[in-house]
Amino acid sequence: MKKAEAYNPFTSDANHELSIGQLGERKLLKEIRDWLGAIAPESPHGMGDDCAVLPGTTEGQQQLLTTDCVSYGQHFNAAVSPQDAGAKLIKRNLSDIAAMGGQPGPALLTLLCGWDLSILWLEQFFGGIRQSCEAYGVSIVGGDVSEIASGHFSAALTLTGQLTTPPILRSTAKLGDCIYVTGSLGGSIRAKHYQFEPRLKEGQWLASQSLCTAMMDVTDGLSKDLSALLPEECSAAIDLNTLPISEDAYLCEKADGRPAAEHAFCDGEDYELVLTASAEADLQKFESDWSTQFPDLKLSKIGHIIKKSPAGRYVDAASSQAIGWPSGYEHFKRA
Amino acid sequence: MKKAEAYNPFTSDANHELSIGQLGERKLLKEIRDWLGAIAPESPHGMGDDCAVLPGTTEGQQQLLTTDCVSYGQHFNAAVSPQDAGAKLIKRNLSDIAAMGGQPGPALLTLLCGWDLSILWLEQFFGGIRQSCEAYGVSIVGGDVSEIASGHFSAALTLTGQLTTPPILRSTAKLGDCIYVTGSLGGSIRAKHYQFEPRLKEGQWLASQSLCTAMMDVTDGLSKDLSALLPEECSAAIDLNTLPISEDAYLCEKADGRPAAEHAFCDGEDYELVLTASAEADLQKFESDWSTQFPDLKLSKIGHIIKKSPAGRYVDAASSQAIGWPSGYEHFKRA
Repeated sequence: MKKAEAYNPFTSDANHELSIGQLGERKLLKEIRDWLGAIAPESPHGMGDDCAVLPGTTEGQQQLLTTDCVSYGQHFNAAVSPQDAGAKLIKRNLSDIAAMGGQPGPALLTLLCGWDLSILWLEQFFGGIRQSCEAYGVSIVGGDVSEIASGHFSAALTLTGQLTTPPILRSTAKLGDCIYVTGSLGGSIRAKHYQFEPRLKEGQWLASQSLCTAMMDVTDGLSKDLSALLPEECSAAIDLNTLPISEDAYLCEKADGRPAAEHAFCDGEDYELVLTASAEADLQKFESDWSTQFPDLKLSKIGHIIKKSPAGRYVDAASSQAIGWPSGYEHFKRA
Repeated sequence: MKKAEAYNPFTSDANHELSIGQLGERKLLKEIRDWLGAIAPESPHGMGDDCAVLPGTTEGQQQLLTTDCVSYGQHFNAAVSPQDAGAKLIKRNLSDIAAMGGQPGPALLTLLCGWDLSILWLEQFFGGIRQSCEAYGVSIVGGDVSEIASGHFSAALTLTGQLTTPPILRSTAKLGDCIYVTGSLGGSIRAKHYQFEPRLKEGQWLASQSLCTAMMDVTDGLSKDLSALLPEECSAAIDLNTLPISEDAYLCEKADGRPAAEHAFCDGEDYELVLTASAEADLQKFESDWSTQFPDLKLSKIGHIIKKSPAGRYVDAASSQAIGWPSGYEHFKRA
């Protein structure tokens, strides 16, 4: 690549350049991997899973690294309290540690604020950060506070974690595996998108079960995220009547007329765990052990991995027809 | 603190709340430490130095963690090429690792972009990232790409590092120590703020010299940063005629009439190292060893630490009068 010229980063009628909105998130992430080339190692030591896995501080231990942010107007708005917004930042990252089966460690916090940010609002945002950090044993060991345009606010957290079991990756599910999901899904827009509990204890327990073959957290909607768990030449047969539909998904159905099951399958920000388990294992014992360990949280077997179906990536197990709901939220995408 | 209500994060004539611009960066950082309380450990294991120092992966090794960002309109503008902007993000963080005497390791990259960001511009930004990462042995092992308002762009990097020597902190300078600075200072606005080399090899070598008592990098201007190296009941006597004044500082003097020495003492973004050395050590040998190791980079003894002077924090060593130039850049500060 030749030496770049200085120019305005944004597209306009004058420069006729393509925007990332025309590309969409999926292709953008692929481009970024290409641009980084050899300096971006493959998962699990690099990009592509919920966390990067690095050599740990002691024998038999590995370190996890993840980062996630919240921006005003994007991940929360004036209808969310500053406490809940601060807590959401911590819990989003904890959910990534949970999805690897890890334990959270020290974190770095970056704030990007316009000069007109309210001190009182920010104090309450930190109240939410502190409360969540205390609840889950996270310490804030550093960070950065930087000025951006007035009226704007973003906060990013980089969270470290420890792993004493082998990591449960996204890429290790097998043909025939059963698909499970924790909790219930859909309608998070009503409140769950900031009022959720990261599934840390559950993730650690699942990672200690040898039958668990792959795992991730549900952030962009099951219909988008589950796709990342499926081996390339496979589809998923979904038992729609076992899909755990939340109360909020039913309330959304009442409001917008779209089926509650579609909300459960497609809505984002559930922060539940989706995982696969070997069909040859004693799944009855697994399910009963789960109930003993976590009596207050449902674990639902929602389907299994089948050979690639001509009907598509997701197939209704009862009818063998394609599940035609849209495939989750694609960030950035503009027409 | 009682449960916070949801409300708009920004100050307005309607809510009469104080803004962080009315507080200024210095007081804001103090407030943040208070808000975090027990979840924010003290330096070196927490906030307050160039990096946080954590237990390392092997005996005798420690891990470093730092984060820094660049925002369009704040740390660079359309007059800076996307390559240089990308490289600046990596090098700013490398400068923090250098200031501890560490070696850089894996990093996480966060992008916050409006949908109208140009793909071509972003590709060239990544060109700068890749080139700097290759030059200094940094790998990008993960990150996050997140949408913000159109027309806006920020990028944050979290960089890990390793340390095989004890860390050289900011807080360990002593009364009587001599003050040194690498390279030359001032006028970085002309180009050096993005065309600089992080002083990694120099920092590692300095950290291996037992006479080196404290160190940091110069980012907000010597007049602000040096203050962080001074023990509480101390001032610095500065030999103004030994201050290493850059060519760019002289060019700035021509343009704005402010003395080149003032530019050298007060301008930010030099990304040089400022350090203290025990006056009882063999400083002549130290200086000659430096010249052998780094023949192309000046090391200047610019003064020494004295008892707190009634004249103020900085005293002209020749006249014993206060150095009355403004004390560096304070972020966020509005009238």
